[in-house]
Amino acid sequence: MPRFTSFITDDVRFPTSQHLDGSDAMNPDPDYSAAYLRVGTDAADGHVGHGFVFTIGRGNDVQVAAIDLLRDHVVGRDVEATLADLGGLWRELVHDSQVRWLGPEKGIAHMAIGAVVNALWDLRAKREGRPLWQVLAAMSPAEIVSLVDFRYLTDVLTPSEALELLEKAVPGREERAAELLRAGYPAYTTTPGWLGYDDAKLVRLCREAVADGYTQIKLKVGANLCDDVRRVALAREAVGEDVAIAIDANQRWGVAEAIDWVRALAPSSIAWIEEPTSPDDVIGHATIARGVRPIPVAAGEHAANRVMVKQLLQVRAIEVLQIDACRVAGVNENVANLLLAAKFGVRVCPHAGGVGLCETVQHLAMFDFVAVSGTLADRVIEYVDHLHEHFVTPAVVRRGRYVAPTAPGSGAQMLADSLAAHRYHHD
Amino acid sequence: MPRFTSFITDDVRFPTSQHLDGSDAMNPDPDYSAAYLRVGTDAADGHVGHGFVFTIGRGNDVQVAAIDLLRDHVVGRDVEATLADLGGLWRELVHDSQVRWLGPEKGIAHMAIGAVVNALWDLRAKREGRPLWQVLAAMSPAEIVSLVDFRYLTDVLTPSEALELLEKAVPGREERAAELLRAGYPAYTTTPGWLGYDDAKLVRLCREAVADGYTQIKLKVGANLCDDVRRVALAREAVGEDVAIAIDANQRWGVAEAIDWVRALAPSSIAWIEEPTSPDDVIGHATIARGVRPIPVAAGEHAANRVMVKQLLQVRAIEVLQIDACRVAGVNENVANLLLAAKFGVRVCPHAGGVGLCETVQHLAMFDFVAVSGTLADRVIEYVDHLHEHFVTPAVVRRGRYVAPTAPGSGAQMLADSLAAHRYHHD
Repeated sequence: MPRFTSFITDDVRFPTSQHLDGSDAMNPDPDYSAAYLRVGTDAADGHVGHGFVFTIGRGNDVQVAAIDLLRDHVVGRDVEATLADLGGLWRELVHDSQVRWLGPEKGIAHMAIGAVVNALWDLRAKREGRPLWQVLAAMSPAEIVSLVDFRYLTDVLTPSEALELLEKAVPGREERAAELLRAGYPAYTTTPGWLGYDDAKLVRLCREAVADGYTQIKLKVGANLCDDVRRVALAREAVGEDVAIAIDANQRWGVAEAIDWVRALAPSSIAWIEEPTSPDDVIGHATIARGVRPIPVAAGEHAANRVMVKQLLQVRAIEVLQIDACRVAGVNENVANLLLAAKFGVRVCPHAGGVGLCETVQHLAMFDFVAVSGTLADRVIEYVDHLHEHFVTPAVVRRGRYVAPTAPGSGAQMLADSLAAHRYHHD
Repeated sequence: MPRFTSFITDDVRFPTSQHLDGSDAMNPDPDYSAAYLRVGTDAADGHVGHGFVFTIGRGNDVQVAAIDLLRDHVVGRDVEATLADLGGLWRELVHDSQVRWLGPEKGIAHMAIGAVVNALWDLRAKREGRPLWQVLAAMSPAEIVSLVDFRYLTDVLTPSEALELLEKAVPGREERAAELLRAGYPAYTTTPGWLGYDDAKLVRLCREAVADGYTQIKLKVGANLCDDVRRVALAREAVGEDVAIAIDANQRWGVAEAIDWVRALAPSSIAWIEEPTSPDDVIGHATIARGVRPIPVAAGEHAANRVMVKQLLQVRAIEVLQIDACRVAGVNENVANLLLAAKFGVRVCPHAGGVGLCETVQHLAMFDFVAVSGTLADRVIEYVDHLHEHFVTPAVVRRGRYVAPTAPGSGAQMLADSLAAHRYHHD
């Protein structure tokens, strides 16, 4: 019986702040980074599971240390039994009481669990010789339900409701999987919209986005209202009337300020307002949603866990749920988030960009289409054209759509050369 | 002009799990620990500011590393200018965008800010030669308002409302401070109620609590309903009808389960139900509050930040706010929490116990009485008789009341011998 024999972490950083890629109203100078994990076994196949937490620079070493804390939950375990019950492992990790105290179920300690869980899913998919989205979409509804811890969810979603919802999506799974392989999954691009770019660069990148076939772009807003009015109007002029423009405030505002600011931008026709305020402010998001209607509110990339997502949906605070592959405790918690969104009929438009977020989150969106929501209606996955060259199976977007990955695994594996070249050296 | 010259962290752990002290339904075997910080200056007075994050064991090293991440915000700074504007420093720390990404504003990264902020308050109080509660209570309403970042609070509390509230409490400050020095602040004890204790020990400790003058005790519940019914009834018999019994589920339940369980215990007359479910579940707490009325719901020790506290109050999810000295970003964020509670007329009954939580949180409660809420009505600070012997100025409870501290500082300073003896050595 093969066992887990290695658990290797790396502090990987890219100096993105030099070009203001990724700059927004709250994050002026991110250095995109990954607290990176490789899990190995003594199986003859030699497969290694890769997972990571995305950070924006300083503290990436602390995030690495938090992942290291979980080593004893993995090393020495039976590989097949563990991979066959990742719901069980998830519960064990999240309910490790001493580590849980450091969250609970949020922040560095919780994201560390996500890296471990995701690395194990990567390994499982490689062992099965399929991309992660197909592994998940091939599971029975009962198996999928077993991935989720319903402790804090049953007031809105019970296991039997989840089962029913998944069973309704069984018919048509094959057709939808085939559709993905044929036509891909719609994408939108944030490449034009970083706050650090000047007007000329903004306009040029907007035009390029349209030429590249995108039907939606996104602009960062929230630092200065006059600038935002001008930038959004310039973007509208550059992309024309048929391309959607979403805006993203990256948590910059209070509730009243958010409503006023978004109303001022409304004449340019806004597809959604993203993260208008603190990601913890469920009630605030609900108030903003009422105040800016019919512009939808989007959030979720910083929702710390499934309990926050549950509430955002419960009080109708968001019309767009933006799951993130690395913010919560991995695939299992995102399965919970997808089930919650399906229960409330809310569309999921994943957050991506950063390092490796496009590569990994596309699997969750595609699984959702095949086996959970069964629809692509108004759904788009974020795409940012950064740092894909460091991955073994980089995300590919063609004519504004993600090409469905077919390589085995979750997409998380970084090139060995990139890992070596960008390993961070502390002074 | 003196400058900050040292920033020394320690990983301090006590093997409390050996005796099941501190055991509850979610935390069966805590090893009470402190990620400990000392901040020194080149001033002639030689004062050192002490602060810490309380953890329950594994991961304390990661918490220490997170504190170390903040060193450059402190070392080299002008001491007097920094201590004179701790609101400014708080904003700088919380809005350090790369570190903020790791929360945002929650968990390990946020608690690390708390340790730094609290160490600086400890230093300020030592330099002023007064206990922290008196330092805070001597500030003008405008100075107190300047400690708080209102970005995400203005939908329920504006700076001018906070100012008005504080100005109303200016008359009587001296009388209330004198009352504290004379009679102390009411306490309750959790010592009898740990889940790992057998019935005989529970009953014996309940009787001792009454003999010691406590008018409220608290029992841990949530692992097994039959056990809880028996234990609460035994406690009621032991303490009589005149002593209040609160119960604490430490986040064990879902919403419906919480309501059923608490109703089953209601015949023993319950003072409050504490942490019935996930600390993130604002809406869930509100549903539980409606379901268990008239038993009040208490929570807040794991509220990650002022935004969570705001919402718990906004939706009337809690009737008792349990601030914690170390969970949020230090004194400044707790000032925000106290102002929010005062705005909503909700009583504050701080969480304590652990390592050093009694020593530090009493200052916040006493400040609240003197300068914010102006009342002791139905207010009690938790007391647990653990580990006080390791502090230079240990919390003192006499006849069921905290004796108001008079020594300069915040109470956080551990004995040098204790620090040395309990410094954790990694294998």
